[in-house]
Amino acid sequence: MLMVDIIRKKRDGGSLTKEEIEFFINGYVKGEIPDYQVSALMMAIFFKGMNDEETGNLTLAMLHSGEKLDLSSIKGFKVDKHSTGGVGDKTSLVLTPMVAACNVPVAKMSGRGLGHTGGTIDKLESFKGFSTAISNEQFINNVNTVGISIMGQTKDLAPADKLLYALRDVTATVDNMSLIASSIMSKKLAAGADGIVLDVKSGSGAFMKNDRDAFELAEKMVAIGKHSGVKTMAVISDMDQPLGRAVGNAIEVREAIDTLYGRGPEDLKELCLTLGSYMVSFAKNVTPDEARSMLHEVLENKKALDKLADFIEAQGGDRNDVYNPDNLPKASKTIEFKADRDWYVSSIMSEDIGTASLLLGGGRRSKEDVIDLSVGIYLNKKVGEKCSKGECIATLYGNDDGKLSEGLERLRKAYDFSDTPVETSKLIKGIVD
Amino acid sequence: MLMVDIIRKKRDGGSLTKEEIEFFINGYVKGEIPDYQVSALMMAIFFKGMNDEETGNLTLAMLHSGEKLDLSSIKGFKVDKHSTGGVGDKTSLVLTPMVAACNVPVAKMSGRGLGHTGGTIDKLESFKGFSTAISNEQFINNVNTVGISIMGQTKDLAPADKLLYALRDVTATVDNMSLIASSIMSKKLAAGADGIVLDVKSGSGAFMKNDRDAFELAEKMVAIGKHSGVKTMAVISDMDQPLGRAVGNAIEVREAIDTLYGRGPEDLKELCLTLGSYMVSFAKNVTPDEARSMLHEVLENKKALDKLADFIEAQGGDRNDVYNPDNLPKASKTIEFKADRDWYVSSIMSEDIGTASLLLGGGRRSKEDVIDLSVGIYLNKKVGEKCSKGECIATLYGNDDGKLSEGLERLRKAYDFSDTPVETSKLIKGIVD
Repeated sequence: MLMVDIIRKKRDGGSLTKEEIEFFINGYVKGEIPDYQVSALMMAIFFKGMNDEETGNLTLAMLHSGEKLDLSSIKGFKVDKHSTGGVGDKTSLVLTPMVAACNVPVAKMSGRGLGHTGGTIDKLESFKGFSTAISNEQFINNVNTVGISIMGQTKDLAPADKLLYALRDVTATVDNMSLIASSIMSKKLAAGADGIVLDVKSGSGAFMKNDRDAFELAEKMVAIGKHSGVKTMAVISDMDQPLGRAVGNAIEVREAIDTLYGRGPEDLKELCLTLGSYMVSFAKNVTPDEARSMLHEVLENKKALDKLADFIEAQGGDRNDVYNPDNLPKASKTIEFKADRDWYVSSIMSEDIGTASLLLGGGRRSKEDVIDLSVGIYLNKKVGEKCSKGECIATLYGNDDGKLSEGLERLRKAYDFSDTPVETSKLIKGIVD
Repeated sequence: MLMVDIIRKKRDGGSLTKEEIEFFINGYVKGEIPDYQVSALMMAIFFKGMNDEETGNLTLAMLHSGEKLDLSSIKGFKVDKHSTGGVGDKTSLVLTPMVAACNVPVAKMSGRGLGHTGGTIDKLESFKGFSTAISNEQFINNVNTVGISIMGQTKDLAPADKLLYALRDVTATVDNMSLIASSIMSKKLAAGADGIVLDVKSGSGAFMKNDRDAFELAEKMVAIGKHSGVKTMAVISDMDQPLGRAVGNAIEVREAIDTLYGRGPEDLKELCLTLGSYMVSFAKNVTPDEARSMLHEVLENKKALDKLADFIEAQGGDRNDVYNPDNLPKASKTIEFKADRDWYVSSIMSEDIGTASLLLGGGRRSKEDVIDLSVGIYLNKKVGEKCSKGECIATLYGNDDGKLSEGLERLRKAYDFSDTPVETSKLIKGIVD
């Protein structure tokens, strides 16, 4: 088998066999097939696509390129959740203790933020002492004892995907549904869960800018999951504006805790209930409606809040910080973005909000950047809401005047206003299962 | 400027600017832009093409990536000829002494053969002592004194094209008209001639399998040449069967000498007269018809034959070998492919004939192979010709029984026959100027 023949076949619109896909993935990981042949193949795939069988085989080849996490020593049905990424998305912080409080084991791998979207691990590190750098044994042990554990992605998980993604990033071959779907699913499947619930974001602040693309990606990922014998479904949710009102790190953790107290923003609560109902339904063999009632209950009786405290404690943090969120990092300065006149908010560009938070120091431009956990933005007004002249539209939290004014400038760009009332878009756009 | 943005622009169907093309070619030659980005761009160009301006700018960027040969110290108008390659194509051996005998200086760079097509330099090395490894000074001096010189391509000529071609070869991105045209023309323009006559082969044995493609390539190359201020035209000639009757190295030189004696095959003579009439017409400002008469004359009075002897002598060979071609390398064994019945030859697949010669030892599978100059094939019967039962269709010359029977097997595949008379295709299919 010659790599040049595989490239030519795809270039001319052919479908690659399982053997051809395994040949190129294995050869690439071993360093036997050079970058320049793989990037040419990626560009041919960009133009000619891959069918469901090819996409499934690519996912499995990448999954098998490294070790798969063995979660068999965890009792019960393990469900994982994955979000395609957005701004203000603190869902995991709320959702995982809710689900764990329903006695569904949560064994989750998370990532750090890059660019305008944040990462769950960065946010969790707002708890002093908390660490996700734990061994596989500790990870599994924590799930069995506490009911929940979150760790960083290990290097050995789907190494082919890491190589391929880095190459695609610099060769303009990221934007292909099959390649995106197989990249996400190879890592998710390697993480060893029995069921996967996907949160596919759609809108200006998401990777998928419109619903058509979001549904297409969701369908591809669900097909891959099922093809691999793992219960999989997807929720398509709105990312035309940030989720909740807080954007940053510690500030998002505070909003997550508020939500577990029952006083958080409605959209965040609703999304957690929806995603959670499918996760619990997968694990407990109950209907999503029954699962939703269980989730409501653990919010009401604060069992979910206590579960977050257990989890933070088990990974080195102080459980009291959950009950006293003022202990979390706080910025020294604030400035407000105020309304010039009476208006309705007509749109908030999530990407600009994410970038404003990055400018304040709350995000990374490159992987090596150190982030300031204390800074962030609070959106006092969201789409559809009225703001009177002089009223605060959004608040910036920072530690540096220069960065604060840069952040404010970007924030102004993010908002658009209307003289007349504005309709808001639906949070849950659909389900793929 | 970022290479990934250039790739994305072409991927999305944009036209690259002169600056973008220069950025990527210069960066690639300097080693600042990696192979994997260039191969992704090549694949994007395969799908999205390049317009004439982009193709011209790519050619010039590759031309300027190295040194351009300075032929200004050669008196007179220098004309170069380039063939896109075929089987049995010994045109240069006949044509260059013909043109030089008309007092048109010939300063030519040639290549070696690879795969099923031969190379002029290999064929010329059938003359013992002959060498094309000469300095630029000797090359120019020989043209001024003898009227003709042929040298191997120097490494410094269009180095970007060498890098790019090697990369395209292993990434299935060779087959694009703009890339092919700019590759050929960057080398031709770097060789410094004032005029270029292109022989674009069309047919089963050529790189361009049909006339449409051959004309498209010819038009692109002629446009590039004119864009660079060099007189350029193209002849589209048939390569549905080999040119002439001899295929190999020394055996082709013998046929070339026969042609200069006036007893060679008609198609070879006609192609040389056609190409030569345009070369002489470019240089002497006469009509192609007038040039053709001049060429006829130097064949008749053997001035062209003597010019070949002068040329061979000037580059280390023995001029007597030209007049005694039996001195050239000869194989020790022959076998004949004989007709099973009365038949007409309906087609000869040039590629198979080339491969048969390669199997005999007359070609290279890889650049490092050493070739046997003495072996080859003589096509006693060509398309349209009648062969009676038992008559010899083709003769194989070799030094090894195993290779001879391998060659014979391939030769059998190359020929097709018909019970009824067959029309032959036109040798000269058209002119692009």
